[in-house]
Amino acid sequence: MIKTADHLYLQVADKIEQMIEKDVMKMGEKLPSVRMLSKQQGISLTTAFQAYYHLEGKGLIESRPKSGYYICRNARRMAPMPGTCAPVRKPASDVTVSDMVMEVFSHITNDNILKFSVATLPVSVLPSAKMAKAVVHALREQEAGGIGYEPLQGNELLRGQIARLSLGWGEVFTADDVVTTHGCMDALTLCLTATTQPGDTIALESPSYYGALQLAEGLGLKVLEVPTNPITGVDLDYLDKAIPRHKIKACLFVTNFNNPLGCCMPDQHKQELVKIVEKYDIALIEDDIYGDLYFGKQRPLTCKTFDKQGNVLLCNSLSKSVAPGYRVGWTMPGKYKDKVLRMKHHHAISCTSLTHAAAGHFLEIGRYDFHLRNLRKMLHTQSLRYAQAICEYFPESTRVTRPQGGCVLWVELEDHINTFELFQQTLKHKIAFCPGRLFSLQNRYNNCMRISYGNPWSKQVEEGLKTIGKLIHKMQ
Amino acid sequence: MIKTADHLYLQVADKIEQMIEKDVMKMGEKLPSVRMLSKQQGISLTTAFQAYYHLEGKGLIESRPKSGYYICRNARRMAPMPGTCAPVRKPASDVTVSDMVMEVFSHITNDNILKFSVATLPVSVLPSAKMAKAVVHALREQEAGGIGYEPLQGNELLRGQIARLSLGWGEVFTADDVVTTHGCMDALTLCLTATTQPGDTIALESPSYYGALQLAEGLGLKVLEVPTNPITGVDLDYLDKAIPRHKIKACLFVTNFNNPLGCCMPDQHKQELVKIVEKYDIALIEDDIYGDLYFGKQRPLTCKTFDKQGNVLLCNSLSKSVAPGYRVGWTMPGKYKDKVLRMKHHHAISCTSLTHAAAGHFLEIGRYDFHLRNLRKMLHTQSLRYAQAICEYFPESTRVTRPQGGCVLWVELEDHINTFELFQQTLKHKIAFCPGRLFSLQNRYNNCMRISYGNPWSKQVEEGLKTIGKLIHKMQ
Repeated sequence: MIKTADHLYLQVADKIEQMIEKDVMKMGEKLPSVRMLSKQQGISLTTAFQAYYHLEGKGLIESRPKSGYYICRNARRMAPMPGTCAPVRKPASDVTVSDMVMEVFSHITNDNILKFSVATLPVSVLPSAKMAKAVVHALREQEAGGIGYEPLQGNELLRGQIARLSLGWGEVFTADDVVTTHGCMDALTLCLTATTQPGDTIALESPSYYGALQLAEGLGLKVLEVPTNPITGVDLDYLDKAIPRHKIKACLFVTNFNNPLGCCMPDQHKQELVKIVEKYDIALIEDDIYGDLYFGKQRPLTCKTFDKQGNVLLCNSLSKSVAPGYRVGWTMPGKYKDKVLRMKHHHAISCTSLTHAAAGHFLEIGRYDFHLRNLRKMLHTQSLRYAQAICEYFPESTRVTRPQGGCVLWVELEDHINTFELFQQTLKHKIAFCPGRLFSLQNRYNNCMRISYGNPWSKQVEEGLKTIGKLIHKMQ
Repeated sequence: MIKTADHLYLQVADKIEQMIEKDVMKMGEKLPSVRMLSKQQGISLTTAFQAYYHLEGKGLIESRPKSGYYICRNARRMAPMPGTCAPVRKPASDVTVSDMVMEVFSHITNDNILKFSVATLPVSVLPSAKMAKAVVHALREQEAGGIGYEPLQGNELLRGQIARLSLGWGEVFTADDVVTTHGCMDALTLCLTATTQPGDTIALESPSYYGALQLAEGLGLKVLEVPTNPITGVDLDYLDKAIPRHKIKACLFVTNFNNPLGCCMPDQHKQELVKIVEKYDIALIEDDIYGDLYFGKQRPLTCKTFDKQGNVLLCNSLSKSVAPGYRVGWTMPGKYKDKVLRMKHHHAISCTSLTHAAAGHFLEIGRYDFHLRNLRKMLHTQSLRYAQAICEYFPESTRVTRPQGGCVLWVELEDHINTFELFQQTLKHKIAFCPGRLFSLQNRYNNCMRISYGNPWSKQVEEGLKTIGKLIHKMQ
């Protein structure tokens, strides 16, 4: 009896495995529900469950909370992960990073270009109708339709709602712990100016978001790039030694689904990191902008979760997930709150009262959770589809990250491939991505690229990745 | 015959003069129209005109374009103007300017405080209903309700409309010359970071808007404060010598209705100033935020009007006159445009798409001009009322500026009066103003204060100024 049952679930599992193998069922696709499978195959619910457990054990499929089973990898081949990112030095080019950034993003509003370059979602997947309703509500509810300045710390309803979001990742925070900002970059700017002086040194991950590098440069800060592993994040031993040696005044890290590596620092590392910054009493600016875009069962924690002494300045915004153009960002600046408020007063006095009031209302009526649930599923599926296509169309030697959240893949090509040159070629085919060189001030990562999977999967996207692959093959 | 007529108009003029003298007709009040006067007094239109001409000649009344005659000063006494602002050194206090700024503005959203401290207009005089309509229009017209990012340079409709505003003050500019920003402070920040490096020296007026001082300090810039005259503005001879001596990299001046002095640089001085910055090929950041709030017949020109080589970066916003909370600012950065765009990309990527689209629409349908006409009349009258009350309630030795635009008065008290101490006392009476010390990094102007006349004249305002006067008398 038991043997036959064994046989049965293995038979079913094998059938599914073959369909995955032959690409009949594609990476990211949803499998039939357990009930449906039992009906289709004429097997018991238990057997159907066993079949899925077996495939899950083999790493071919995965269950997603309240959603069902999904195909998570192609059994034939999976591109290897990149290792801890170490310098790949090349002769300095005569183009500066800033020049490159401007060239890459000069096409940002050209609709004819297929943009793998921007780590944002297309407006078609954003809740524009609900946000418009929230704006109309704010026009009605705010004094003089929100035409005046806000209080310096920001809209109170919005701050209260932001505090509630912390339920998902930590301690109890209140509206009073939050300072609103004009998007997340503004939050980073205020936190950096509040915790450093021009000439100071700060630590960033390597590779690091080019925006943070450019910001630091603009503020006259020196940058130490800390080696970072695509799975566990920044190298803490290295950091612990580097802080006193380089007189680091602040760390600026993207701890969850880092941009561009996609790594999510394990909770224990977060706790250790907080201990390190407490030991030296320096600031940790934690950019958590991708934290809500997790694919797993739970939202990852933050360093702020473990912050007892107020050294952590958490920064976030609604720009990645809800409304980029509304410029709704914030920081929870811990013990630096007074300084951050002072910087906010010096820089801009007030955020956009109307859109901030609207965002507060949107969060209050629970639209954010609802919207995020769908967004996460979509992004998870897209991450797998994109990774599979890269595997299929890029050279065998290609390495690619496997992010468990966020919206970007980091791709490592062979050492001699210069991705800025590649970019100039793909642009002729109306395709843009981010060359790796943008993610360091040290002339590194010339053989790497960041590919955003924010755009929904389509024939056009597939053709785009195929074209990039072909061009790489030609450069081999 | 002629003699009688003479007699007649003098009789009427004398009557009016007495009424002004006795405060029956108050400063800032509108006089009956010429037609009305001729009817009331049973005189010809010509005689009525003559009476007003006579009073205008004596400087008691003034005609305002398309509006009629107004009482412009009290014949009895007029506080003298302050001279060119020179250092009044006092022992350094242990409170920093930044601390003072925070203390002065910590009450900014407390509705129970009478605020002479903020150089903005109350929302009650702003066009909130029209702006709300423009927002609803933008929600309908923009792609996805304006939820996405804008192009880097800013909303095109808005930029086109801003270019049209330059009709009033100069050359032909186009949408392509304009870069939008998150308010005027953001424009100043972008322009400063585009034209300087931390450690560089810039020139500011003295006294100077504390926001500019704090901004410069925050960016690691050194500040040279240039002597400034309440009528003609910054001392150009001084500047011409100072630029090479102090290796000045940029000047940041409020050329029209300067904050806090209220001075409006004569056109010829503007032209000379442009020649000076051209000679040394340095940047002139021109903050024209009060330029549209003129009381005279014509809008004053700008330095940008005379800028042939692109050295001038004009900055402005709608925050003073239309919608502070919408965060609509801009710059015309001349030859520094690429650098400014780069800084904008690094700092915040996008302005608030929705409110910027709404502002574009508001300007397009001609609401701005209409709104400004009423606002100017109101501010002109208020400036006179406030000045008169200061004259009446403050000590005899008080000096006060006579701005021809903008919304602030600069008041100079006797040397031994410390206005920061005065501020702490008035605050107990729920009255706030800006102590002079805020307007310099050099521990100057401790005996000065800035009084904003943005709040419509009322019994409460009068009582407030009376209370400040009493407290000064006690400190004499």
